[in-house]
Amino acid sequence: MDNLDIQENLKIILDESSNLSLNEIRRLLNKMSSSEIAHALESSPPKQRSLLFSLLEIDEEGDVLSDLGEEIQQDLISNISNDELAEAVKELELDEVVDILQNLPEDRMKKILSKMSLRDRQRIELGLTYPDDTAGGLLNTDVISVRPSHTMEVVINYLRGQDELPENTDKIFVVSKEDKYVGELSISKIITSKLSLTVREVMETNILPIVVDQEDKEVAILFERNDLVSSAVIDESGKLIGRITIDDVVDVIREDADQNFLGMAGVAEDTFAPPGRAAKSRVFWLSMNLLTAFIASMTINIFKDTLDQIVYLAVLMPIVASMGGVAATQTLTIVLRGLTLEQISSSNLRWLLKRELAVSILNGMVLSVLVGVATYIWFNEIILSILISCALIINLISSVLAGVFVPLILRHFKQDPAIAGSVVVTTVTDVVGFLSFLGLATIFLI
Amino acid sequence: MDNLDIQENLKIILDESSNLSLNEIRRLLNKMSSSEIAHALESSPPKQRSLLFSLLEIDEEGDVLSDLGEEIQQDLISNISNDELAEAVKELELDEVVDILQNLPEDRMKKILSKMSLRDRQRIELGLTYPDDTAGGLLNTDVISVRPSHTMEVVINYLRGQDELPENTDKIFVVSKEDKYVGELSISKIITSKLSLTVREVMETNILPIVVDQEDKEVAILFERNDLVSSAVIDESGKLIGRITIDDVVDVIREDADQNFLGMAGVAEDTFAPPGRAAKSRVFWLSMNLLTAFIASMTINIFKDTLDQIVYLAVLMPIVASMGGVAATQTLTIVLRGLTLEQISSSNLRWLLKRELAVSILNGMVLSVLVGVATYIWFNEIILSILISCALIINLISSVLAGVFVPLILRHFKQDPAIAGSVVVTTVTDVVGFLSFLGLATIFLI
Repeated sequence: MDNLDIQENLKIILDESSNLSLNEIRRLLNKMSSSEIAHALESSPPKQRSLLFSLLEIDEEGDVLSDLGEEIQQDLISNISNDELAEAVKELELDEVVDILQNLPEDRMKKILSKMSLRDRQRIELGLTYPDDTAGGLLNTDVISVRPSHTMEVVINYLRGQDELPENTDKIFVVSKEDKYVGELSISKIITSKLSLTVREVMETNILPIVVDQEDKEVAILFERNDLVSSAVIDESGKLIGRITIDDVVDVIREDADQNFLGMAGVAEDTFAPPGRAAKSRVFWLSMNLLTAFIASMTINIFKDTLDQIVYLAVLMPIVASMGGVAATQTLTIVLRGLTLEQISSSNLRWLLKRELAVSILNGMVLSVLVGVATYIWFNEIILSILISCALIINLISSVLAGVFVPLILRHFKQDPAIAGSVVVTTVTDVVGFLSFLGLATIFLI
Repeated sequence: MDNLDIQENLKIILDESSNLSLNEIRRLLNKMSSSEIAHALESSPPKQRSLLFSLLEIDEEGDVLSDLGEEIQQDLISNISNDELAEAVKELELDEVVDILQNLPEDRMKKILSKMSLRDRQRIELGLTYPDDTAGGLLNTDVISVRPSHTMEVVINYLRGQDELPENTDKIFVVSKEDKYVGELSISKIITSKLSLTVREVMETNILPIVVDQEDKEVAILFERNDLVSSAVIDESGKLIGRITIDDVVDVIREDADQNFLGMAGVAEDTFAPPGRAAKSRVFWLSMNLLTAFIASMTINIFKDTLDQIVYLAVLMPIVASMGGVAATQTLTIVLRGLTLEQISSSNLRWLLKRELAVSILNGMVLSVLVGVATYIWFNEIILSILISCALIINLISSVLAGVFVPLILRHFKQDPAIAGSVVVTTVTDVVGFLSFLGLATIFLI
């Protein structure tokens, strides 16, 4: 089976499933990996998605569920029995089971836990105590640990005795008698070291373990900066309680990027969400915009006598407001990126603000000439051209102040600046845009 | 040294470096890892950045350079001598050296290559032949390969004979006599298998190697879907030419997300770019918006007689245009996400379009009531209220058509829909917004 075949299977399932018998679809699904099936489900409208999921073997269901986004995962789970779900998640890794169970209603979760072995239940109940967006939410307990006094020979023989090593095992961990984390030992070092050396002599001790309550975004930054494949996780007392592996961290990075991207437009739904859910996810944002649009209208209303006398002001006024909105979004985007990557601090904020002001003045000069000339060609009125140019420069400067300070203020009040930022910022530039253009016109043209 | 110390060092460098002697800064830098230094450089304005970089030891410079974004990397390189650069990159991995050299002017690159050993030079010259955004651009040549006929004992002894294994070696590769890729052998399997078995008996053959000219985004999807740590890379003839490791793939994912995020606002620069460069990166987008703003103004101009008679139309008209713009951006965002994740195909596009229309009608009903009631309260004119409600519904429907088809059309013409999409889409909703509201008003109020 090669890449082309897989693409082919996926295409057939998506494009032609209505022409296939259930058995034919089932045969295609059997040839696909769980992640490919998950992709097919995420690319299908709800009805077709339920059909495809119902055709899966029960032992495939767990892997597919854990590869799905939260919303689709929970939709599909709500249609299967407790017995089936308990069976499906049996073979999953701890963090995967916890991800699935923690979103269930309390009593359903309890019923499913009661169907598991005592050992599994205790492990999962511990996992459920950690918040989803912390290191604990990414935790797996499939760690191999050794003591500092063991020799390499003992370690190698211990490893050779395993049927297979847990996935993504690039290192094992060294713990004290009290299970406290002491250091780590890469598999590569184990293979290439002399058999007579002790763990203490070979282990690395300057790599920091992750603490279970660290934020998952911080974990992602640590993995990225230090090129990690796995990392030890300790509790507050320093006890080794598990590990985090890169595959789960990659999911955090991808989801985080996805949320930032969607958040900027006030959207929070999967691509093929049903219409009711999609409408609900977006209506808040639209309503906020309606409110701010009325605020802009009220600003215009202040100048209705001016507009009554000079009608072409109404023709030109959206230009100033819209240019300010675009410039403000650009500044906001740079500041949001800097905040996300933790690049902005009190020491460089001043420089950043000055740079943004310089940018707005540089671009303001270019654009105000363009807008002035275009207005002069169109209306052949020199004062009007000068006024619109000045209003544009005023609004570009206001766009910098809004773009820099609005996200900082929102963050100070613990609001996500990626979500609320652009509405607030464009309200500012709309209001300042109409105020400056119509205000100047009222002073100089009436 | 623990996490807190590192944060502390970074903070001191960023916030107080002006109060420190160069020796004190140098001592702090010595305590930081190359990725932390890179982060400090990316968080510094240009002048301070050059100062910090000049304080680094030459053997640290290479690692730091390879951790930096392209723009900052090339800035810093332009200030150091060819000898220093050749020395600094000596110890880097192939893909890192290639990343640095490929952006240099042709003659400078040649001078630096001429300072290297023949073996290094040939390896790098081969690396330079692969485009940056393909699997070849992520290629490392530090592969360990064995033959199918070797026994596990031979393989283990061979590995034990190495000083250390290359970083992120979770598997080694199996090749034929002609160096063709045959399969792979995980380190975990090597450790846990019987010594008398042959490679042929233990190896995995159903994992697909990556072909050198595959796009880097595709490589990222393969790594994500299959939870890979490393993967073989073959040329068109099937010969094993190297491998790709997860750390480089994580960088691709992060950069890709960063570009999508910045691209939507027409920004392309690092956070602390100097003002001239930042202004240049943004002015194109602002100029495009100026053009579309004039198109919107021309639409308004069609109705200047109407506006002359009923001035409050000018007060209300931005509401319809701006609501359409927000709704269109929401639809566009969902479609862009679907295209990026390869979820949208001809088979589900119809469903998606219908869903978006349903969403716009659902939200259109809610919002048109809100806007109608608010207008009635404000102006106490029932016909005006009905007109603005109708115009809003018309514009929301146009926002769906624009949000779905504009990105598809742009992609068809090989334009990046994430970049050009939002300008085109909001132009459509501005024009339709003004046309529908002022048009209806001209028909029913004049």
